Amino acid sequence: MNKRIIAAAAFLGLGLALALSAAGSALQGNTTIEAEIKAVLDAQKSAWNAKKLDGFMDYYWKSKDLTFQSGKKVLRGWGALMNRYKKNYPADKMGTLDFTDLEVHRLGRNFAYVLGKWAVAQSGETKGGVFTLVFRHTTKGWRIVHDHTE
Amino acid sequence: MNKRIIAAAAFLGLGLALALSAAGSALQGNTTIEAEIKAVLDAQKSAWNAKKLDGFMDYYWKSKDLTFQSGKKVLRGWGALMNRYKKNYPADKMGTLDFTDLEVHRLGRNFAYVLGKWAVAQSGETKGGVFTLVFRHTTKGWRIVHDHTE
Repeated sequence: MNKRIIAAAAFLGLGLALALSAAGSALQGNTTIEAEIKAVLDAQKSAWNAKKLDGFMDYYWKSKDLTFQSGKKVLRGWGALMNRYKKNYPADKMGTLDFTDLEVHRLGRNFAYVLGKWAVAQSGETKGGVFTLVFRHTTKGWRIVHDHTE
Repeated sequence: MNKRIIAAAAFLGLGLALALSAAGSALQGNTTIEAEIKAVLDAQKSAWNAKKLDGFMDYYWKSKDLTFQSGKKVLRGWGALMNRYKKNYPADKMGTLDFTDLEVHRLGRNFAYVLGKWAVAQSGETKGGVFTLVFRHTTKGWRIVHDHTE
């Protein structure tokens, strides 16, 4: 009987340990994902502000299935988005980019969406608006798979 | 030895059956989720066109954390969105709503995002644009947790 009690106690103990560990890693997971995604957006901002459009574009999913909605239109494919930025923002128009009011919403382990505001300060003028980004965790890290910028 | 072989064969057979079953339900899952979400958008459209704003709003997550971005602004909470629709679309302005070019992108088992176009045809005028919706599967079915409409 004692052995049974010991076995039962060990079993409960193990269960408790597993439950605490799962809760711990879920919490850590949320914090980590938020930090990782914010780091990606920081890296994008730094690349833009160093006038490195290639670096900025590295964080978009390099796929023909990348989507970008803006101005009531849908653009499809990484190359098309690169061309849009090159056309709309030649080096002397890139100004200073900032992202604010970021909200990271985790969707399971490998996806998240982010709300936020963007602003580009150029000499004498600041443009800006809101965005919705969908992120996917890839082998290269978190990448934007869909961007709706207004 | 024969028993071992039989046991091993049974084990492999079970593994194969489980793998096929998992692949089958993943495929079925994609189709089902797309159909379920399109059914929600159809139900929203029907409710709107019957001038039943309550029915239309039923498919938004009834939470203070529901977000809606439009016109470069962020609106927060189901009640705030209901008030926005009531103000912008009194019954005589609701016209006929249509959703087209729907693309459902599944994000794991319980989330998806949807791109599409919307149009409201009123007497003599049609408004329209694009949207990004984030859906979550809740106990009541699929609900919109974030809407970016432009």
